[in-house]
Parts: sequence; C-alpha cells; structure tokens
Amino acid sequence: MKVSRSPLAPARFPDLPPVAGVRLATCACEIKYRDRTDACLFSFEPGTTIAGVLTQSLTASAPVEWCRKILPSGKARAIVINSGNANAFTGRAGRDSVSRVVKASAEALGLPPRTIYVASTGVIGEPLPDKKLTGALKQLKTGLSGTAWAQAAEAIMTTDTYPKGATRQAEIAGTKVTLNGIAKGSGMIAPDMATMLAFAATDAKLPTALLRKLLAASAEKSFNAITVDGDTSTSDTLLLAATGQAKHRRISADTKPGDPVLRSFRAALDDLLQDLAKQVVRDGEGASKFVTVEVSGAASARAAKRIGLAIANSPLVKTAVAGEDPNWGRIVMAVGKAGEKADRDRLSISIGGIAVAKRGMVVPRYDEAPVARHMKGQDILLEVDVGIGRGKATVWTCDLTHGYIEINADYRS
Amino acid sequence: MKVSRSPLAPARFPDLPPVAGVRLATCACEIKYRDRTDACLFSFEPGTTIAGVLTQSLTASAPVEWCRKILPSGKARAIVINSGNANAFTGRAGRDSVSRVVKASAEALGLPPRTIYVASTGVIGEPLPDKKLTGALKQLKTGLSGTAWAQAAEAIMTTDTYPKGATRQAEIAGTKVTLNGIAKGSGMIAPDMATMLAFAATDAKLPTALLRKLLAASAEKSFNAITVDGDTSTSDTLLLAATGQAKHRRISADTKPGDPVLRSFRAALDDLLQDLAKQVVRDGEGASKFVTVEVSGAASARAAKRIGLAIANSPLVKTAVAGEDPNWGRIVMAVGKAGEKADRDRLSISIGGIAVAKRGMVVPRYDEAPVARHMKGQDILLEVDVGIGRGKATVWTCDLTHGYIEINADYRS
Repeated sequence: MKVSRSPLAPARFPDLPPVAGVRLATCACEIKYRDRTDACLFSFEPGTTIAGVLTQSLTASAPVEWCRKILPSGKARAIVINSGNANAFTGRAGRDSVSRVVKASAEALGLPPRTIYVASTGVIGEPLPDKKLTGALKQLKTGLSGTAWAQAAEAIMTTDTYPKGATRQAEIAGTKVTLNGIAKGSGMIAPDMATMLAFAATDAKLPTALLRKLLAASAEKSFNAITVDGDTSTSDTLLLAATGQAKHRRISADTKPGDPVLRSFRAALDDLLQDLAKQVVRDGEGASKFVTVEVSGAASARAAKRIGLAIANSPLVKTAVAGEDPNWGRIVMAVGKAGEKADRDRLSISIGGIAVAKRGMVVPRYDEAPVARHMKGQDILLEVDVGIGRGKATVWTCDLTHGYIEINADYRS
Repeated sequence: MKVSRSPLAPARFPDLPPVAGVRLATCACEIKYRDRTDACLFSFEPGTTIAGVLTQSLTASAPVEWCRKILPSGKARAIVINSGNANAFTGRAGRDSVSRVVKASAEALGLPPRTIYVASTGVIGEPLPDKKLTGALKQLKTGLSGTAWAQAAEAIMTTDTYPKGATRQAEIAGTKVTLNGIAKGSGMIAPDMATMLAFAATDAKLPTALLRKLLAASAEKSFNAITVDGDTSTSDTLLLAATGQAKHRRISADTKPGDPVLRSFRAALDDLLQDLAKQVVRDGEGASKFVTVEVSGAASARAAKRIGLAIANSPLVKTAVAGEDPNWGRIVMAVGKAGEKADRDRLSISIGGIAVAKRGMVVPRYDEAPVARHMKGQDILLEVDVGIGRGKATVWTCDLTHGYIEINADYRS
C-alpha cells in the first residue's frame, strides 16, 4: 500500500553539514525494493570511538547480536546498513549472513572485522540476500563523500513517509563541534517492515567510556521516551560515533558526563536525539496528532517515566486524543495502572495548560470549552502532577487512529 | 452511540437455576440511563461466606475501597450494585456516597453495615446521585426473588452489547451444588463507561479462607487471563459468595484447595469463571474475532502467562488478526518484548494448529494457504512453544479493529 506523507511531517529535510572524519555512500541493491536506494555505508577515520543502545528484545536480530558483541571494543571504522530485510528470526542462516557481510566489508575496505557494525531493517523471517549487499561494497566505497547525509536518511527508510535528519552545533572548551544524526522508524515498532534505527556522528574527541555514558543518558530522554504502539522491535539500534577530528583540548577518560566542559555538547546531543525521536513519533503509523505527556510530582524520575509511558501507551487515551475528546478519566485510569505509587486524592491533571482535575476531583466550575479547543489542534499537551514527590519525566507519542488499523490490518504486509 | 450486538455473542442467555440462599432484585433508578434497570440487589442468607478479587489500580474507585476494607471479615449478607456511574475519581464525595448507600442499606435490610458490599460502574468523575439509589432500596427489598439472575445481568450492563451469565453444577462429597455467575464488561477496560464486574454465588458451604484460595486460583485462569486493550479499570470487582445452604458434609477450614473432595467444585468454578471471562472478551469493543493464545515451554507458568499477555496485548498482533494476516513475525516480536526468558532459536509457533515456525526459523516449504484459511474464521488459535521449560498458560483476547477506534475515538462518551 502507498501511505501518503504524515500530516505531522516537518516542512523539509534540514541541511546537514559534513562532520569531519565521516563519509557516507548509498546505492540501490534491490534487496527488496525497486527504483530506490536500500544500502548505506558509513566510513569513519581511524581513532573513532563508538557507543550504542540496542533493543532489549530477547528475540533480537542477528545484526543486533553482532553489534552487541563488538561494542565493548568501543572502536568503529564503518557501519553497513540495508533496508528491505531485517535479517531477524532467520536463525543460523541469519548469523552466517552477518558473518559474510562483515568479512566482505573488512576485505573491501581493508579494515579489521570487529570495527564494522551492521544494521538491517525490513521484513523479518526471510533470509537476507547478502550477496546483493556484498556485491555493492566496491560501489559504496567509491561513492563515499562527506555530504551524503540526506541520501543516507533516504536509503534506510522502510514504511517511513519522510526521511529523518537533524544537526546541532556545540562547543567543547571553546572549540566548535558538529553533531549530525539520521533515523528511521514509523512504529515503535512494526518488526516486519519498520524498525527504529538511528545513526549519529560527531567530530568531538571523546573516550569510549564517556561517550557511552553520554549516549545512555541522552537516549533515556529521547528514543527511550517515545512510543507509538508500545511494541518493541527485534532490531532497534542507536549508534553514536565520535571521530575525534575536532581540535579541542583533550577530554580525559575519567571526566564525568556532568562536567561543565561537556555542558554544551550534552545539551546539543539531547536536543539532536530528541529531534530525531520526535520525528519518528511524527511519522507514527496513522498519526494525526503529536502528544507530549509531562509527568511531575512522582516518587522518582523513573516512576514519572513509567506513569508517562502508561498514559502514552494506553489505547483508550490515544483514541480519546484521536477523537479530540478531553477524556481525563482515561488519564486517571492510566496513572492507576502504571503500578507506581500514586494517590487518587493528590492527582492533578491539565490539558493544554488548563487545569481539569485537582487533588482527585474535577476542578470547580470546570469549563470544557477551552480544553476541547486545544484537543482540536495538532500538538496536544497532557500534564499530570502525581502530587507525592519530585520525580519528573516527559514522553512523546501520537494518537491511535483508523490509519493505524488500515496500515496494520487492512493490507497484507 | 448505538453499538449493535457483538458478532461473537452467544446465541442466547443461559437458563440460570436458583441458588439456595440467594435472592436478587433489580429496578430502574434513572442514575444515568432512562427506560432500563440500573440497580441490582443481591441478598444472602445468614452464614454466607464471601471472597473477592479487586482491581490492582492505584486509583481505585470508592466502592472498591469499601469492598477491600470489609472483605477480611469474610461474611456477606448483601451486594448493592448500580450502573451508569462508577463513583470513581470523586474524592471525599465518593467515599461519603458509599457511606450513605451502606448506611441506608443496613437500615432498609436490617443488616450490619460491614456485611454489605457495593459496586458501581459507568461514567467516572461525576458524583454518584446516591439518593436515587437509596430511594429504591425498599422497592428492591420487596422485589427479591431467587429467579432474577437474567434481570440482574441486564441491570449491571453499561456499554455491553449483551448480558452475560453462566451456570454449572458440581458435587461435594456426593451432594449436588450449584454455581451461578453474571458479569459485565466490554473493554479490559474502559473506565469511563465500561468496567469489569462479576458476581458469582454458590450454595456450597465453604469456609472463607478456603473460598479465597479457590477464587484466587480460578480468577488467575479466567478474569486475570483475558485482555481487550490492556487497560486496567479503576472498578474491576469479582465477588464469590457461598451461602452454605447445600447439605453436603462439613468442609473444614484447613482443607487444602487441592483436596479431592473439592475436585468437582474446583473444575466447575474454573469453568464458570472462564465462561464469563470469555463472554467479556467476546463483547470486546469492536471485536470481530476471538483469539486463544496458548503458551507452552516457558520457564514457569508465570512466565508463560506474561508471554501470552504480551502477545494478546500487542496492537500489531491484534491488527494482524483483524486483517486475517498470519503474521508470525509479530508474534516473535511480542515474545521478545515480554521480558521473560526466551531463546529465538528454540521458539516454535503454530497458527490454527499448523506449524509455522520451528526452532527460530520458518518451517521448510511453509505453505501459507491453510494458515490463511484459519485466519478467516472467527475463532483464532495462536500457539507458542518457547522451548526452554515446562511453564504453560492460556490467555484470551479479541482483535483490534476499526470498531474499537469508532467506539473510543469517533464518538464522545
């Protein structure tokens, strides 16, 4: 089926400047799709460090297993990505495919195998026709350039209705650094045709241990704070490479992630990953509204996030948003089912900044009209104050519409 | 909105015989609905024991809080139920309402307040007009009869498209006993207009401690093994009363629930509650197919159930069923996200009894045609063998269709 561009899509793909030490190439291998690119190669200069966040799924794909195996080295020279086939639930054949892709890439690029990361997205349960991919390696190598970020964002798409990219500038000890990222995904996640992949790179020079901590904290506030349907992909992969080409002063391995020297970088990384994560939500299958859930007053930040995700994942809340119904009763229900400490008589709820319920009861003389007007907009804000502590979290989601059912039920994938 | 009778509804309401020691009455109080009954009184003879399973929600309704408070006594003389208003998220006013209903019932029926249970279902966040209910108590008392089970099942309906009832016979030490039950619910659960309530009664004579154990075990395999949308009501209430009017030999308080003397009763109770629970699923909002998920080979029974619920709650699995798509990849995904021990390479999946995937891969020469035929039916069977242990569980759900979106988004509740 042909799905038209999401109504929540950004106006255009942003201009991504080159990141020193990163070159990219794409090509069309016809792994599944015709008349479009479906392979992408990232090449990094020597000295590049890498950190990753991978799916928690216990049925993870063969490429994810490979990444998990080599990430402890903290070094990266290349990432080989294909769309159209996820190489998931392919058993021994899937692992063999990954081995062949890594081996061929190591030979073609003249690199140690364990510096080469792989990621696949698309149909699951079908063997990856890896020859098509390995046969394209020379062409990919020849085509490498520092400016192909937009092309890369397009090559990794599956059911996405638009390519996703973002860029930020920061400074480390007075020296400018650049951060770029691309992502794909339009469910959270449909493992048979759409998984979440994101690749970010910076020219900052950061020791692996520190890069890992920065990425973990930032992923928690971005890709781990979004949900479309609460389903977890077998292939979710987020990689952040730091080429070290920027000429800032050395950042030692024992620098704390909270150190002031990293303040600007940290903020830019948070901002970059949130931008990409929100773009994934805005491409959520059938999405017609973008929803921000702000939880405060929870027992802890972790509790706040669980409550926020319970609200964001509730089919009843999501259909109420789709129906432009300021149905705060469903928000109460979702708070109650989150399993985190809550006290009905201390709970307060605002919709679109307007108080709806305070301390467990609807506000006196509640006027639904302005709340109903907010619900008619495209950006919906749901705020919940649990009233028992200082824990805060923000999560993002979209509504649940007929479009979701159409994409996932009415057409055979 | 008017929703027509579920296509999965049973042909007719079963004939429920009287249960010695139980009398019922219904009446129309116009709490919210017009031209229908909306109040129900259960009256039990002295000596009746009671056990209950209540919602785990941390924002439970005032009636649930009252039941939780008096259940430890283990004695019951009456249940007062209303539909149309759930008396949930009504704060102090909600508790005061419950107090007034209990006090007025105690006076009207001449009973101790702490033997009177209450349950409310319907809109939340609106004060319960309890005067309408207390004003009807005399009429309810006058109308009590042993044969009003079908009327009771009708009076407690909200968005249900049909009344739900079941009956079973069993024997305890050679003496016949009867078990009846009624239930309401059409989402699991929409707390603003539909919550799950179930009331069962038997003439068996069973000590409270034993009744509790029997009910807990049986609820785990019935009402706690169904899901429509994964949402948890603020009002879910399951009560089982045992009047002790049957003339079987005394069952002592230290009898184990597994004792052979209870075998027939246990089986009948399991069967009764599963019948009612399945009727709730068959009335699931928008349901067009009834889905049985059988999980075997998990690390434990508990793990099997979590995996089963992850499959049954997955929007991607549920939309695939709606679309008659034998999409086993989505089942793999759901197993992976359940968070229970699983090994992709040992996982086997059957649909409609036909092997689809074995040990982590699609079966050789997989023929989708017979599987696709099964998916076109109304009763869908999904079987997963995790392949690592002996844990088993069965859960039931329905598909996720446009009907669900229509009921929950397209119309204001």
